[in-house]
Amino acid sequence: MIAAGTIGVVVQDIVRADQATIDALGEFGVATVHEAQGRRGLLADYMRPIYPRARVAGSAVTILAPPCDNWMLHVAIEQVRPGDVLVLGTTSPSNAGYFGDLLATSAKARGCKAMVIDAGVRDVRTLSDMDFPVWSRAVFAQGTVKDTLGSVNIPVVCAEELVNPGDIVIADDDGVCIVRREEAATVLESARAREANEAAKRARFEAGELGLDIYDMRGRLARKGLKYV
Amino acid sequence: MIAAGTIGVVVQDIVRADQATIDALGEFGVATVHEAQGRRGLLADYMRPIYPRARVAGSAVTILAPPCDNWMLHVAIEQVRPGDVLVLGTTSPSNAGYFGDLLATSAKARGCKAMVIDAGVRDVRTLSDMDFPVWSRAVFAQGTVKDTLGSVNIPVVCAEELVNPGDIVIADDDGVCIVRREEAATVLESARAREANEAAKRARFEAGELGLDIYDMRGRLARKGLKYV
Amino acid sequence: MIAAGTIGVVVQDIVRADQATIDALGEFGVATVHEAQGRRGLLADYMRPIYPRARVAGSAVTILAPPCDNWMLHVAIEQVRPGDVLVLGTTSPSNAGYFGDLLATSAKARGCKAMVIDAGVRDVRTLSDMDFPVWSRAVFAQGTVKDTLGSVNIPVVCAEELVNPGDIVIADDDGVCIVRREEAATVLESARAREANEAAKRARFEAGELGLDIYDMRGRLARKGLKYV
Amino acid sequence: MIAAGTIGVVVQDIVRADQATIDALGEFGVATVHEAQGRRGLLADYMRPIYPRARVAGSAVTILAPPCDNWMLHVAIEQVRPGDVLVLGTTSPSNAGYFGDLLATSAKARGCKAMVIDAGVRDVRTLSDMDFPVWSRAVFAQGTVKDTLGSVNIPVVCAEELVNPGDIVIADDDGVCIVRREEAATVLESARAREANEAAKRARFEAGELGLDIYDMRGRLARKGLKYV
Amino acid sequence: MIAAGTIGVVVQDIVRADQATIDALGEFGVATVHEAQGRRGLLADYMRPIYPRARVAGSAVTILAPPCDNWMLHVAIEQVRPGDVLVLGTTSPSNAGYFGDLLATSAKARGCKAMVIDAGVRDVRTLSDMDFPVWSRAVFAQGTVKDTLGSVNIPVVCAEELVNPGDIVIADDDGVCIVRREEAATVLESARAREANEAAKRARFEAGELGLDIYDMRGRLARKGLKYV
Amino acid sequence: MIAAGTIGVVVQDIVRADQATIDALGEFGVATVHEAQGRRGLLADYMRPIYPRARVAGSAVTILAPPCDNWMLHVAIEQVRPGDVLVLGTTSPSNAGYFGDLLATSAKARGCKAMVIDAGVRDVRTLSDMDFPVWSRAVFAQGTVKDTLGSVNIPVVCAEELVNPGDIVIADDDGVCIVRREEAATVLESARAREANEAAKRARFEAGELGLDIYDMRGRLARKGLKYV
Repeated sequence: MIAAGTIGVVVQDIVRADQATIDALGEFGVATVHEAQGRRGLLADYMRPIYPRARVAGSAVTILAPPCDNWMLHVAIEQVRPGDVLVLGTTSPSNAGYFGDLLATSAKARGCKAMVIDAGVRDVRTLSDMDFPVWSRAVFAQGTVKDTLGSVNIPVVCAEELVNPGDIVIADDDGVCIVRREEAATVLESARAREANEAAKRARFEAGELGLDIYDMRGRLARKGLKYV
Repeated sequence: MIAAGTIGVVVQDIVRADQATIDALGEFGVATVHEAQGRRGLLADYMRPIYPRARVAGSAVTILAPPCDNWMLHVAIEQVRPGDVLVLGTTSPSNAGYFGDLLATSAKARGCKAMVIDAGVRDVRTLSDMDFPVWSRAVFAQGTVKDTLGSVNIPVVCAEELVNPGDIVIADDDGVCIVRREEAATVLESARAREANEAAKRARFEAGELGLDIYDMRGRLARKGLKYV
Repeated sequence: MIAAGTIGVVVQDIVRADQATIDALGEFGVATVHEAQGRRGLLADYMRPIYPRARVAGSAVTILAPPCDNWMLHVAIEQVRPGDVLVLGTTSPSNAGYFGDLLATSAKARGCKAMVIDAGVRDVRTLSDMDFPVWSRAVFAQGTVKDTLGSVNIPVVCAEELVNPGDIVIADDDGVCIVRREEAATVLESARAREANEAAKRARFEAGELGLDIYDMRGRLARKGLKYV
Repeated sequence: MIAAGTIGVVVQDIVRADQATIDALGEFGVATVHEAQGRRGLLADYMRPIYPRARVAGSAVTILAPPCDNWMLHVAIEQVRPGDVLVLGTTSPSNAGYFGDLLATSAKARGCKAMVIDAGVRDVRTLSDMDFPVWSRAVFAQGTVKDTLGSVNIPVVCAEELVNPGDIVIADDDGVCIVRREEAATVLESARAREANEAAKRARFEAGELGLDIYDMRGRLARKGLKYV
Repeated sequence: MIAAGTIGVVVQDIVRADQATIDALGEFGVATVHEAQGRRGLLADYMRPIYPRARVAGSAVTILAPPCDNWMLHVAIEQVRPGDVLVLGTTSPSNAGYFGDLLATSAKARGCKAMVIDAGVRDVRTLSDMDFPVWSRAVFAQGTVKDTLGSVNIPVVCAEELVNPGDIVIADDDGVCIVRREEAATVLESARAREANEAAKRARFEAGELGLDIYDMRGRLARKGLKYV
Repeated sequence: MIAAGTIGVVVQDIVRADQATIDALGEFGVATVHEAQGRRGLLADYMRPIYPRARVAGSAVTILAPPCDNWMLHVAIEQVRPGDVLVLGTTSPSNAGYFGDLLATSAKARGCKAMVIDAGVRDVRTLSDMDFPVWSRAVFAQGTVKDTLGSVNIPVVCAEELVNPGDIVIADDDGVCIVRREEAATVLESARAREANEAAKRARFEAGELGLDIYDMRGRLARKGLKYV
C-alpha cells in the first residue's frame, strides 16, 4: 500500500468490502458499530452533518488535499464507484469550502453517496435539496484554488482518524465511524450480537427496571464504597 | 448539604420545589427567567439542544461523574421522580457519549423529562424520535466505562454554573438556566412582572414606536455625548 | 467617512445601493457572490443562522457596540429603512445576548429584514416563529446593559470583515458575504456570468461527464507529476 | 453560608485554614495535592501563569464579577489578609483585563500573594517585575468599567470549579488546585504519604527499574489480553 | 484611500506619523495607550509574542495575503522604511507559517522592527536569537506558496481590528494596540495625563490606601445596594 | 505491520533509522525538514513545548492510549532504546495529565530523549529542571487511571498526523515533524540542499537585497496584474 502522506499518486484499483456487509453495518448506525469494534474508529466530534437524519454506509475513496486547494476532488470523482463515500483530509488545517453543489452533482452522477470532509463545505441548502449528505468541520463559502497536487486512494488522516481506501464509512446524526475493510465481517457479527442484547434490555428498561438491577451493579458499587445517605 | 466535589455519595431525599411553581417558570423560558433573577443562572453557551423547539422545566437530580465513565448515571436514574431533569457535570472535561437511547428509555420510564450534560450524547436521532430532549456540549458516540465512583445529588458544576440537587432547571432553544429552589417563588413573581411589562412594550414596538422613546433614552444619550451627523 | 472605531457618532444619511441590484445579488446567494467578487467579503465561518433556509439581501446599517451593552441597537433601529440589515460588531469580544424578540419586533416594524451580529442572540424560537433571521456567533440568553456609547453607521469590523454602512449584506445557509456598495453593479454582472457558466457545466456533470474533462485538467495534472497506479 | 451567585454581598469574617497547613500543602504542589485528595479540585487547563516558576498557596478571597466590570476587585482588596489569594469568577464569560499593575500594587500592599482570575490580566511585564503571579484565562489589555455590583467572599465558580471563601488555593506551573478548608489536614496527611511513597519509587526508576515491575503490572496486563509480538 | 479588501495593489507613498510621537507612545505600552484612546484599538487576545519582554512601536506597513500564500510579504518588504512594523491580515483564516528567519533577515536589513501577523510564524528560536519580535496567532512551520496576489498598504483587518497603512502599532507582552495616525498626538497627550495620574495613585496604593477610598467608591457602592455581612 | 487502531498489542522489534541520519536531520530543525520533504509531516500547531529552546531528534516508540488512562506508558517504556522519543495518541480526545516526573525519570533512565503527547502533561517545572522536554496539547495535572489496554509500537494518529513506530521525530520551538524511516536518507539530502541554498540567500538578504530580486519575482507579479500606485 502507498504510505500515508505520499503526494502525487492516484490508486485506481482499490479493494472494497462486500456490499451486503456494508449495508448491514449501515443499519446499525455509528454508535453501535463503534461499540461493536471495541470503541474505535470515530472521527472527531467536530464533524457534523449539514442536515439532520441523513444515514449512509459506503466504501471510502480517500483524498489527501493541500490547504485551500480542491483540485484532487476532481481527480477522485473519476475513481468513484456506485455506493462509495468520498473522504477528504488535508495536509494542513483548512476550513475552506472545497465542496459545493457542482461537485456534488458530479459525484452523485457517478454513484457517490456522501462526502466526509475535514474542511469546509458550501451550497448547503442546495446539497440538502439534492439529498446529498456531507459531514464536515465547517460550513464556509471560501473558494479554493486548483494548483497543487495531493493524492487519491492512499491512507489519510481525516478528523484525527486514519482512513484507508476501501475502509467502510458509517455516518449518521451521531457523526462518522470507520470500519477497517478486513474487519467488516467480524464487526458486523459483533454488532448483531450487541443489538440483540440491547433489544432485550430495552424492553426491561421500558418496563421500569433499573440498570442497577439489569446489570447487577449494586454489589460492585458497594464494594467500591458508594454510600447512600 | 454534602460539599461539592465529594466522591462516593448518593443523597436520596432531596427537596424539590412546588410543581406548580416549576411549571409556571417553565412557561416563561430561559431568557425571561434569567433576567427575572438578576441575570444569573445561565449555563455556558456551548450547551445546545439536540433538536429544536424542546422546552422543559424540572427539578435537578445532579450527577458528578469521572471523565469517560457513565456508571453514576445508572445510580442517578433510581433517584429520579416524575418531572425531574438529570444534570451531569464531570470531575474533568470529557466529550464522551455518556448518554444514549437505552439510558433515555430507562430515565423516561422513571418519569425523567430531560438530560442536561456537560459532556457528549449519542443516539440523537432515536432520542429525537422518542421526544426526549438533551442539552449537551457535544454529540459524540464515544463509549464510556463503568469503573469509577462519582456522586449523585450533591452540588455539581455543570457548564460553568453550580447546580444543587432540587434546583429548578429551565431549558429551551436559548440554552439552560438554573433557579435556586429557595428563590423559585420570588423569581416567578419577578418573571410575571417582567412579562407583563414586556407585553405592553411589544404592542408599542409593533406599532413602530422606538425604544429610544419608549424607554426615554434620548436625553441620557445626549448627555453621554452621542452626536448625530 | 467617519473613521472605523470612532465612538459616539450616529451617521444618518448613509447612501444605499439600488434596490434592484441588491435583490438581484440576493438571488445568487453567498457562495456565488463571494466567487464573483474575487473570493472576498466573507464573514468568519462561526457566523451561523439561527434557523435553516433563511435568505436575505439588504443594505448594512452598522453598529459598533461595547461588550455586553446593547444600547446602540436602539439608536440604530431609528436609522433603519425598509430592506436594511443590521450589522453589529463589538469593541471587545462578547457572546452576550444583545438581541431578542422585543428588539426584533421593533426592527421588523421599521422594515428591517435581518440581523448579523458578532455576539449572541436570544429568544431564537420566537425569532424563528416571526421569520426574522439572525446570523450570530452564539445563541446565549445573557442579558446586557445600556450604559456605554458606541456608534451607528460607521465602518465596523464584524466577524473579521470590515463592513461599511450601505454595503450590501448577502446571507444564507452558507453564511454572510459583504459587497462594497460601489462595486455592486460589477459584482452582479460577474455573478451573472458565473451562474450562466455554471448552469452549462451542471448539465454536463449531471450527464456523468467529469470535471477532469470539462475543465481539461488531465494534461496539467500530468505535467505536475500526478501518477496513476 | 451565602448561596453561590448571590449579588451585592460582601462577607467580611471568613474562616481561614491554619497557616502552617497551607504552607505545607504549598510545598507539595498542584499535581500531588490533586492526587492526594482523590483527583479533585483542579481548575480548567486554560488557566495559565503569566510567568514560569511561580508557586503559591493561600486562602481564597473570592470575587463574583459581572462581565467587563472590575469594580468588585476594589471591594475585595479591603478583605484581604496577609497570605490570601484573590480568586475571581464572572457571572458571564469575559476575557477583559480586569487586573493590572495598579490593582496588584494595592493587593500586594495588603499582603495578597497572587491572583487567580477566570478572565484577562494586563501589565504582565510589570507584574512579572513585581514578582506578583497571576493565573488567568487570557492576557488582554481590554479595559473594564465600574458600574455593576457582584459579591465578595461567597462561593464562586472559577474556571469550572467551585471555590468557597477560605478554601486553600495551590498554584504552580501545572495550574491551580483548590482544597476545601475542612479537608486541609486530611489532604495534607495524604499528600505526605503519597510523596514518601513516590520518593522511594523515584530512586528505583532512576536505577532503571520499570513501572511494570515496581507496580507488578505484568500479570494484570496479560489477563486483560495484552499480546507481545 | 484604496478600499479594504482590494486585491492586486501596492501603495507606495504612505504617510507616517512623526517619529518622536511614535516613540513616545511606545514608552507607555499597550494597556495605557488602549485606555488613553477610549478603550479602542486592541487586536484580539490570541495575538501573542514569540518571546517575553519585547516592546515595539512603529508605523504599519500593511499586507493582505491569501490563505497559505506569503508572496505579498516579499512585495511588502520593499515598502518598509526604518522603524516600520509589518502587519499581515489574510483573506481567509490561515495558521500557516508565512514568516521565518529568511524573511526576518530581509525585513531587518530594511529597518523593519517587528512583524504582527494574523497567521503562523516559524523559526521562532532563530527569530528570538535575532531579537526580531513577532506577534502571531500561531507558531506553525507549515510552508506557504507564492501563487496568488494580495495587496500592500491598503486597510486590512488583522486579528479583528482594522489597520490602515501608516497607523501606529504598539506591541508588548500585553498584545498589540493600533493608534490611528491622525489621532496620534491627541492620544499621546491623553496617555501622558493618564500616566501622571496613575503615578500619584501608585504611591498611595503602595502605602496601603484602598481604591475604595482613593476613588471615593463607598457611597456609590452603598447606593447600588452593596451589603456587608 | 499491525493496523492502526489495533488494541492490545505490543510490538517489540521495531526497525529504527540509522543514528547518524537521525542526528543529522535533528540539526536542521522542524521548519527545514518539513520543507525538505515536500511540506509534509507536521503535527498540529497546538502541540507546544513545555519550555523554550529544547531540540530533539529520535526514533518514535508509539503508544495508543484510552482517554484518561496512562497504563500503556509503563508498557512502552520497556520498549525504549537509548535515543528514542515516546509518541502518544489517544483513542478519544483527552487533556488529562498522562505524563509527569516519575514516568519521565523512568523514561530517561532507559535513554528516552523526549515525549510527544496528544494529551496533557504535569510536573512541568520538575521536567524542566530535569531537562526532559515534552511537546503536548495541554499542561494539566488531571490524574489518570490504569484500567484499559491500548497498544505500543503500532501506527498511531498523534495531533492529526500518522506516526509509525520507528519514524523519525524532529521537535523544536516550531513544533514537531515526522519523517518516515524509509525516506530519511532522501529527506536528509534534500534538507542539506535546501540549507545550502538558504545560506547563500541569507547573506544577500542581510546585505539588503530584496526577495523580489533574489527570486526574480517582479515579472510574474506584473503578469498576474499587480499594480503599484
